[in-house]
Amino acid sequence: MKKVEVITPILNANDLVAQENQNLLKTHGILPVNLMASPGAGKTSLVLQTIKALQGRARLGVVEGDIASSIDSDKVAATHTPVVQINTGGECHLDALTVQKALKALPLSSLDILLIENVGNLICPVEFRLGEKIRVAIASVAEGDDKPYKYPGIFTSVHAVVLNKIDLLPYVDFDLEAMRQAIKRLNPGAKIFELSCRTGEGVTAWAAWLESQWKVQEK
Amino acid sequence: MKKVEVITPILNANDLVAQENQNLLKTHGILPVNLMASPGAGKTSLVLQTIKALQGRARLGVVEGDIASSIDSDKVAATHTPVVQINTGGECHLDALTVQKALKALPLSSLDILLIENVGNLICPVEFRLGEKIRVAIASVAEGDDKPYKYPGIFTSVHAVVLNKIDLLPYVDFDLEAMRQAIKRLNPGAKIFELSCRTGEGVTAWAAWLESQWKVQEK
Repeated sequence: MKKVEVITPILNANDLVAQENQNLLKTHGILPVNLMASPGAGKTSLVLQTIKALQGRARLGVVEGDIASSIDSDKVAATHTPVVQINTGGECHLDALTVQKALKALPLSSLDILLIENVGNLICPVEFRLGEKIRVAIASVAEGDDKPYKYPGIFTSVHAVVLNKIDLLPYVDFDLEAMRQAIKRLNPGAKIFELSCRTGEGVTAWAAWLESQWKVQEK
Repeated sequence: MKKVEVITPILNANDLVAQENQNLLKTHGILPVNLMASPGAGKTSLVLQTIKALQGRARLGVVEGDIASSIDSDKVAATHTPVVQINTGGECHLDALTVQKALKALPLSSLDILLIENVGNLICPVEFRLGEKIRVAIASVAEGDDKPYKYPGIFTSVHAVVLNKIDLLPYVDFDLEAMRQAIKRLNPGAKIFELSCRTGEGVTAWAAWLESQWKVQEK
């Protein structure tokens, strides 16, 4: 009887490239952050607020992922932050290879933190590592407090959850305590930041945490 | 030289099953509607408001699509409306075969309109016909007015756009006229319904249009 060899790949092709990206960024002392969220949860607004909050404290670079348009990267470029736009042309997530190409276009030797804004989607981006050290889910209070139960994959895979648009709390049916409990149940170690990119409330704590993560990595 | 035959499939496997679903539903005089949106845009809220608005005017059935949980179908079942929950377990969209299975569990001979709530995602559901006659995108004003440009696929493929959560307009940076123009530019024939599932404002016009579409089909 012929023996059938089964080879289990430990890392798939995307993971291999993601590892290359992570190594490259580590060489430069850069903290790479993968920002994932539904369309309209406030990814770009969080990028802009983070740039503002860390001005003079850390040098930021940005990769913007979208199906189409350069609306987001135009906003980031207006702040004189190095930014590369990736238009996936239909793909529902970024992948490590596309991000690798974007890295070639960024001035890595003069960056400290790289914010990678993924395509607006709570499902597909979860399976594709990009080379990030930190994964963040952004949820908006306008989306409702049941999202962790409906999209458990993303909420269990992240290091932090940013709960955005808290300025809308008086106007929506959102149970803040229920949301906190749902996140804790799925992912006890996840940091939770409640903030509003519109008013700026709560952004300082988020930015300080991000900066501390970069400093920890540097050592 | 050997001739290579290239066969272009006119309908792929999913489209074939979608056609079967459509034929079956047509036999029963049922109008099938595919509701697509971001997570938290208000798909289930729109389903519940539509059930209420069409009470005594059309008999509704519902298919609920989610990655996980039965939160949505529990809400629909509480209104004594026939409902089937599909948990995709990770898939980012419904497909025709899964919907076909769901149809077997519904009392088709006593239904007039079938609302199919797709998985919360602005990208993946667009490519998969389910057997629907009407495709609807639901967007929330909390998501911002740039969504048509960022997710052109869904906005060009639908018969109607429901702009939900207009009660939040005073509290968000949303340019209503810019949104209307963006939709019209991409999809001049699309109907636009501006409403709030929270306050009920504008729901009547949407429900009346849906009822008219069912009556047109019946003839």
